[in-house]
Amino acid sequence: MNPKHPSESLTILTDLVLPSETNPLNNLFGGELLARMDRAASIAARRHSRRITVTASVNHVAFNKSIPLGSVVTVEAKVSRAFNSSMEIYLDVWIEDRESGSKTKANEAIYTFVAVDETGNPVPVPQIIPETEEEKARYDAALRRKQLSLVLAGKMKPHDATELKALFV
Amino acid sequence: MNPKHPSESLTILTDLVLPSETNPLNNLFGGELLARMDRAASIAARRHSRRITVTASVNHVAFNKSIPLGSVVTVEAKVSRAFNSSMEIYLDVWIEDRESGSKTKANEAIYTFVAVDETGNPVPVPQIIPETEEEKARYDAALRRKQLSLVLAGKMKPHDATELKALFV
Amino acid sequence: MNPKHPSESLTILTDLVLPSETNPLNNLFGGELLARMDRAASIAARRHSRRITVTASVNHVAFNKSIPLGSVVTVEAKVSRAFNSSMEIYLDVWIEDRESGSKTKANEAIYTFVAVDETGNPVPVPQIIPETEEEKARYDAALRRKQLSLVLAGKMKPHDATELKALFV
Amino acid sequence: MNPKHPSESLTILTDLVLPSETNPLNNLFGGELLARMDRAASIAARRHSRRITVTASVNHVAFNKSIPLGSVVTVEAKVSRAFNSSMEIYLDVWIEDRESGSKTKANEAIYTFVAVDETGNPVPVPQIIPETEEEKARYDAALRRKQLSLVLAGKMKPHDATELKALFV
Amino acid sequence: MNPKHPSESLTILTDLVLPSETNPLNNLFGGELLARMDRAASIAARRHSRRITVTASVNHVAFNKSIPLGSVVTVEAKVSRAFNSSMEIYLDVWIEDRESGSKTKANEAIYTFVAVDETGNPVPVPQIIPETEEEKARYDAALRRKQLSLVLAGKMKPHDATELKALFV
Amino acid sequence: MNPKHPSESLTILTDLVLPSETNPLNNLFGGELLARMDRAASIAARRHSRRITVTASVNHVAFNKSIPLGSVVTVEAKVSRAFNSSMEIYLDVWIEDRESGSKTKANEAIYTFVAVDETGNPVPVPQIIPETEEEKARYDAALRRKQLSLVLAGKMKPHDATELKALFV
Repeated sequence: MNPKHPSESLTILTDLVLPSETNPLNNLFGGELLARMDRAASIAARRHSRRITVTASVNHVAFNKSIPLGSVVTVEAKVSRAFNSSMEIYLDVWIEDRESGSKTKANEAIYTFVAVDETGNPVPVPQIIPETEEEKARYDAALRRKQLSLVLAGKMKPHDATELKALFV
Repeated sequence: MNPKHPSESLTILTDLVLPSETNPLNNLFGGELLARMDRAASIAARRHSRRITVTASVNHVAFNKSIPLGSVVTVEAKVSRAFNSSMEIYLDVWIEDRESGSKTKANEAIYTFVAVDETGNPVPVPQIIPETEEEKARYDAALRRKQLSLVLAGKMKPHDATELKALFV
Repeated sequence: MNPKHPSESLTILTDLVLPSETNPLNNLFGGELLARMDRAASIAARRHSRRITVTASVNHVAFNKSIPLGSVVTVEAKVSRAFNSSMEIYLDVWIEDRESGSKTKANEAIYTFVAVDETGNPVPVPQIIPETEEEKARYDAALRRKQLSLVLAGKMKPHDATELKALFV
Repeated sequence: MNPKHPSESLTILTDLVLPSETNPLNNLFGGELLARMDRAASIAARRHSRRITVTASVNHVAFNKSIPLGSVVTVEAKVSRAFNSSMEIYLDVWIEDRESGSKTKANEAIYTFVAVDETGNPVPVPQIIPETEEEKARYDAALRRKQLSLVLAGKMKPHDATELKALFV
Repeated sequence: MNPKHPSESLTILTDLVLPSETNPLNNLFGGELLARMDRAASIAARRHSRRITVTASVNHVAFNKSIPLGSVVTVEAKVSRAFNSSMEIYLDVWIEDRESGSKTKANEAIYTFVAVDETGNPVPVPQIIPETEEEKARYDAALRRKQLSLVLAGKMKPHDATELKALFV
Repeated sequence: MNPKHPSESLTILTDLVLPSETNPLNNLFGGELLARMDRAASIAARRHSRRITVTASVNHVAFNKSIPLGSVVTVEAKVSRAFNSSMEIYLDVWIEDRESGSKTKANEAIYTFVAVDETGNPVPVPQIIPETEEEKARYDAALRRKQLSLVLAGKMKPHDATELKALFV
C-alpha cells in the first residue's frame, strides 16, 4: 500500500445549526457536534483506507467556544497519522460570522477509527506522509497520544512510552 | 456593493447516507436529499449576500442516479447568478466509490433564494461575475430560467421573454 | 391497464409545524416542506400505479408564503398526468388560521415520479383522465412541462417541442 | 358557541412508514404511531375548538395489527364528544395494500385534549352533534368512558357513574 | 418458569427535554412522552420475559402536569402483572427541579406488551409476585383493568367480569 | 457549599438501539452514543451543581465493544471529581443480553462539564467525597487527567504536573 498525504482524506461538512440541535442557552448541543464530527471523521478515515471504518475512540474534544443557533458550522477532518489498522483523525471546527464572513476556530477534536472488513476484523491501512508544518506537528504528537492511550489502558508500561516520557523528564 | 465570483459562495456538505434516510429500495430518500440541498444552498446564498436568506423556489432537480445506503454524498452549492434580491444557486451532487475513490455525478439541482432583513423584507444582493466556462454557461442559462419562471407565473408575456424565445424560433 | 382519474390518487397529509422544523425566522424550513411533499407525492404516485415509486425530478416549487411555527399544514397531492412509466404529481399546500379556520394556499409544487419493479426497472402505469377544469388545465400544461424538461436535458430539439413552442411563436 | 359536527374536525394524516420508525420485527414502532396519532388528534381538537389544545390523556389504544415498513398509513381523527373544556378524539388507523389498494383497519385509539388560552388555562369548547350511526355510538360511549376515567381517578364514586354502572347491573 | 418480582424489570430512562420535543406552549409534546414511555415499557417487558416484546395496547395515560423545555424527566417502568403472554407495565414519570433537586410526579401510564417469538407468535411469560404495598395494589387493579379491556373489546360479558363488577354493585 | 458524594449525581439512561441509530455494520453509531452520553453526563453535572451546565470537553471515550441493533443500552453517569466550576463525569455503558439478562461493559467515557449562570459565566460547584474503591481510584486519576489536559493545552508546564509526572519518573 502506498502512503498517502493528509490532504487526500480532507472532508468538509458545512451545515447550519437548526433549532432542534440547541441546548437551553440556545447554542449547539455538545452531543450533536460530537455526532457531526464522528460522521466527518468516519468519511476521512474511509477516504484514507478505502474500507469500512468504525469509531475506536474519541481522544480529546475541547468545547472552547459556544456555537449559537443559526450559525454556519464547518467541520474539517483529516487523517493525521496511521498505525497498523487504526487512524488518528484531527478535526477543526469553524464558525463563520454572517455579516463579515470572517471565520473563527470553535474547537478541535481527535478521534481514532479502525478499518475493518465486512466481518468486522481489522485490516491494514496506508501510512501517512505529512506535508504542512501543522500536519507534521500533529503527526508527531499522534505518537505520544497513542502511547498515552496505551498507558491509560494498561497495555504499555509508562517506562516504555519513550516519546511521551520525554515530555516529563 | 462589489460583485462577487461564484467561488466565493462555494459550500461543501459531505455526509453519509444513514439508515434513517433511505427508501424501500435502500437508497437515499428523495425528500432527504432535497432537504440537504436546501441547507447547502441556503449557506451559499448567505455567503454571497451576508444576509438572512429564505428559499424562494426549487426550479429543477433531476434524480438521475440512486444513492445507496452507506454512500458518501457531497453536495456542492454555488451562486450562479444574482438578480435584485434573489440568487440562483446551482448544486452538484456527487457520490464516491468506497473502494476506488472515484466520484460520480448523482444529480444537479437549481434553487432560488431571496435575501431578507430581520423583518423578512427583500434586500439587494451583490451581482455575480462568472469565471469558469461552466459558470459562464450557467450564468447565461439563469436568465432564461428566470424568464421561464416569470412566464409560468403569468408575470411576463412569452413574447417579452427575449432570451427564452430565441431557443424556439 | 384502465386509465384513472386524478381523484383516485388524492393524498392528504395534514400535520403540525414543530419547533425542530423551523428556520431562523421561525417559519417552516424549506427543506422540511420539500421532504413532506416528496412523501405525499410518493404515496399519490403509488396509489395511481400500485407499484414502488421513486422520485425522478422536482420540476418546480414556489415558496410564496412563509408558514409559521405551530401552523396546521395540509399537503394535497394528485397525479396530474401519466406518461409511459412516469407520473407528474401536482401538489397544493394549504395553511389554516387557528382562530377563523380559513384556509390559504401557501404554495404549489410539481414532482415527477417513476414506477419501478423490485429490481428498480421502470414499468408502465395507467393513463390519466382529468375531470375538473383545474385538472384539465394541469393535464395540458404537463405535456409542455415534459417537453421543456426534455429540451433542457438535451433529449428533444426545441423545434420538436410542438406544444411548448406554441407558447412563444 | 354553536355546536359542531364530528366531520368538521376530521383530520387526515397519510404518511409512509420509514426505516427509522420500525422495531426489531420491521414493523412500525408503537411509540411512533402514538406520536403521529397525538399530532392528528391535536389538530382535530384545534379544528373543533379554534384554540390551543394540549393532550390530557390517552384513554385507550389497541395495537391489533402490525404495520410493516414501507406501508402507507392513514390516521383519521374526529372529535367524538365535547365536555366543558375537554374533547374526546376518536382515531381510526388504516393501512393500504400497495398492489390491490384495499384498506384494512390497523387500530383505533381514544385521546382526550383540553382547550386552553395563551396562559394555559382551560376555556370552554362547542358541543358535538353526532350524525352517522358510528358517531352516535361513539358519542354515547364517550360519557361512560368519561365516568370511568373519573372513577379511576377517585373523583367520582362508582355509585354515581350512572351510565357506566348500567353496563354491569 | 419461575415467577419474578416487579423490581426485576425496573427500567429507568432519565433524559432531557430538548427544543425539538416541545409544543407551542414550550412544554414536552404529548406524542414524544408517549414514545419515550413506549421504549421504557418495552425494555421492562423484555427484562421480565427475556423475549422480543411488542406493544399491545396503551390502557391509560393521564397528562396531569406539563413538563417544560429543559426539564430532567425520569421515566420508571415496572411489570405490574403478567397474564399468559401479556404483561401490564406501570409507568411513573417524574420531573426534577434544577435548583432544589426535589422530584414531582408528572404523570402515570399503563401499557400492555405481548411477548412473541421470532415469527411474531405469542409465547408464555413468568408470573409476577408483588412485594411493596404499591405493587400489590397495582397487581390487584391490573385484573380489573384486564376485565375492563375484554369487556370494552366485546370479548367478555360485563356479567362475567367479577372483580370489575364488584366496584359498581 | 457542602461537598457531595458521587452517588448523589448518579444518572441512568436506559434505552433501545433503534434502526435509525445504526452504522453500515448494523451496530450503534459512534456519534449517537456520544450524544446519549453527553445528555446523561449533562444531567449528572446538573444534579451535582444544581446549575445550568455545558460540555467543556470529552476527555476520552473508548469504543471497545460494538452494540448491535435492538440492544438495551444503559448509560450510567456520575461526577467523579469537582474542581472550581468544572466537573469530571465518568460514564459506564452496559449492554444486556436479552435471553440471559447478563450485563457486559461496552465502554467507558470521561466528559468535563462547567457550571454556568444564566449569562454563561462559570460559577463554583460543591466538592466531591468519593466513597467506593472505584470512586476513589477515579477521583485520584481525575487530577492527573486535569493536569494532562492543561499540559496539552499549553496552560501548565509538564514539570509542574506533579501527579502526572510521577507516572513516568
